[in-house]
Amino acid sequence: MSDIYEDSLKLHQVNRGKIATKLKVACENSKDLALAYSPGVAAPCLKINEDSNLSYTYTNRGNTIAVISDCTAVLGLGKLSAEAGMPVMEGKAFLFKRFADIDAIPLVLNTNDPDEIINTCKILEKSFGGINLEDIAAPNCVKIERELIESLNIPVFHDDQHGTAIVVLSGLINALKLTKKKANECRVVVSGCGAAGSNVIKTIYNYGFTNIIAFDKDGCLYQHDKDSYDFLKKELLDYVNLNDESYDTLADALKGADIMIGMSAANIVSKEMVASMKQKAIIFALANPSPEIPYEDAKKAGAYIIATGRSDYPNQVNNLLAFPYIFKGALLANATRITDNDKIAAANAIASLITDDLSPDYIIPSPFDERLKTVVVEAVKNSCIKGGFIRE
Amino acid sequence: MSDIYEDSLKLHQVNRGKIATKLKVACENSKDLALAYSPGVAAPCLKINEDSNLSYTYTNRGNTIAVISDCTAVLGLGKLSAEAGMPVMEGKAFLFKRFADIDAIPLVLNTNDPDEIINTCKILEKSFGGINLEDIAAPNCVKIERELIESLNIPVFHDDQHGTAIVVLSGLINALKLTKKKANECRVVVSGCGAAGSNVIKTIYNYGFTNIIAFDKDGCLYQHDKDSYDFLKKELLDYVNLNDESYDTLADALKGADIMIGMSAANIVSKEMVASMKQKAIIFALANPSPEIPYEDAKKAGAYIIATGRSDYPNQVNNLLAFPYIFKGALLANATRITDNDKIAAANAIASLITDDLSPDYIIPSPFDERLKTVVVEAVKNSCIKGGFIRE
Repeated sequence: MSDIYEDSLKLHQVNRGKIATKLKVACENSKDLALAYSPGVAAPCLKINEDSNLSYTYTNRGNTIAVISDCTAVLGLGKLSAEAGMPVMEGKAFLFKRFADIDAIPLVLNTNDPDEIINTCKILEKSFGGINLEDIAAPNCVKIERELIESLNIPVFHDDQHGTAIVVLSGLINALKLTKKKANECRVVVSGCGAAGSNVIKTIYNYGFTNIIAFDKDGCLYQHDKDSYDFLKKELLDYVNLNDESYDTLADALKGADIMIGMSAANIVSKEMVASMKQKAIIFALANPSPEIPYEDAKKAGAYIIATGRSDYPNQVNNLLAFPYIFKGALLANATRITDNDKIAAANAIASLITDDLSPDYIIPSPFDERLKTVVVEAVKNSCIKGGFIRE
Repeated sequence: MSDIYEDSLKLHQVNRGKIATKLKVACENSKDLALAYSPGVAAPCLKINEDSNLSYTYTNRGNTIAVISDCTAVLGLGKLSAEAGMPVMEGKAFLFKRFADIDAIPLVLNTNDPDEIINTCKILEKSFGGINLEDIAAPNCVKIERELIESLNIPVFHDDQHGTAIVVLSGLINALKLTKKKANECRVVVSGCGAAGSNVIKTIYNYGFTNIIAFDKDGCLYQHDKDSYDFLKKELLDYVNLNDESYDTLADALKGADIMIGMSAANIVSKEMVASMKQKAIIFALANPSPEIPYEDAKKAGAYIIATGRSDYPNQVNNLLAFPYIFKGALLANATRITDNDKIAAANAIASLITDDLSPDYIIPSPFDERLKTVVVEAVKNSCIKGGFIRE
């Protein structure tokens, strides 16, 4: 891995970052200047001043989003300075352009105060067709995203919360096909209830996985402990352990389970624990870079399907499969928000790309699968239109 | 002119605006992804977290500026909605790219409150190498720019205040050569003391034009009226009418004057007034689109040199000659602010492009003069370095 870090430094230094701007129209003479700028530009200004929706007609707004972070939870590195988060935000903007031809502007904010972050997004709303929140620590990320979804008239999406959830669901959809199991008959054990884990739980529940047991660092989530939980964990009790079953350890819960999903820490699942699960066990071990159980160990212990967060093993859960196309679909639909149904539509579309070649080692497509930009975009666009949160 | 407006609407609609983003590095396989994004991107993040100056090494920050407006004074249109100002801000970003290869991000703010605008710029500081303020009404623009120059560690420049001033000075420098007049021996009459007018006065005074009489809509500025003036007009009394001379009308002041500079209103200067000026009179009639006196009338009345804001007459005063190169020079110098000396250096450099072919109808170069991007950039860069406001 050390080579990758050295090579990455070199790449960033030689190119001084990863994105730039480019011109969409010519400017070779006074006539060009008069059309693109003064005096001609007064015409689109006045049109938009009469009807603000025309900003999507006469400017690049309809294909432009902001990638906004306060850099409090950058990659797995934790809180960094605003400047230090920029390579990730520029990288995200780079991916939006490369995979969905979206013009994304990376913005790192010189504040960690959620109200200031919310206010800054409100002040910037009219410049953008959407906002992708990024690498903001929980629980602020939840508060920020919710308030912005309610108050802004453009889609707002915190990728760390939803991106992984959508790709996990797409993998599970294909895993069900292979194992011939049904969502509502599977017992699912989730380890990790942070921003990503909480949303994996809600998303797969909405799809039909209604039997979920969840663990965080303090142990199993119980209905009877509700009063001692923070607001995020309280909310999860509508989705997990509905019968208030009792499990002292993760090992206890995994006995007889169909599916284990980890977004927690390296090496907390043993071969014995995998072996205690039901036949055709499905393991999503997503802790990065070291999963909850190494791929090889899970395989040896009899797991039927194994997914990780790593690109050097089969079935990488990579949110790159989702976020560019979710936003592209929403922008093309003139959507004002991205709903739970849109996320499920995206997951179904991602899963649908694998048909005859479906196998335990190929339930999730490659991020370089060219069909994503048509199939997933179209599915999300249609879902947005159906959902009705559309600009007038 | 109506064709230009129709054609401009079409241009904006067909292209949906004027700028987009582009990739600076390749992304064709997993290796590319690992370098530009996860996991490799952690390396530049950690380096910058240790030394924030490295954001200029590992990201595009050193070539990226924000074009920020609250859209309270857009072109000559006055206050527009935030969305409605976007075609101008996108246009400005377009010009920065086209003429100085600067990556500029257009941001229209959903607030007109100067303190909120200042705070938003502070919150965005770490994302950018500089901030070009644009189309913010006076007097807020002055307050905002001053506070940001003091508090931010990146150059901040309000083009509406300084751009015109720099180009006017460059024209005057060449006009002096042609007329063999000396700056400190010229009597200058300025009509219009708004954001642009005030800065023309200060800039040419700093260069050496120390005999200036100024008029605003209420008449001549007097030392003895100081107490009744707002803070901007009070400040101007350090630059104009130092002997507290008395002029009832603009016509009175123009009698025997060497130079008249108008940034006020159409057709307020008559042929008789021009004829009453000194030999080899110099007229900068910059009201747009209709100047203080039509070019033809000024010519007939005996003016020796005439400049306007229009591209269809000789000597167009166009701030496009200055702002792209001012910022490029400042960015290349690692400057933390743009000073008065840098502006004079830019004006001298612009003027220097015209040598043997200097004539009354050619004192200001064309915005398409390719030498601007070397000569003016280099002059500003050197001036910034000499001035000492440089990032450590």
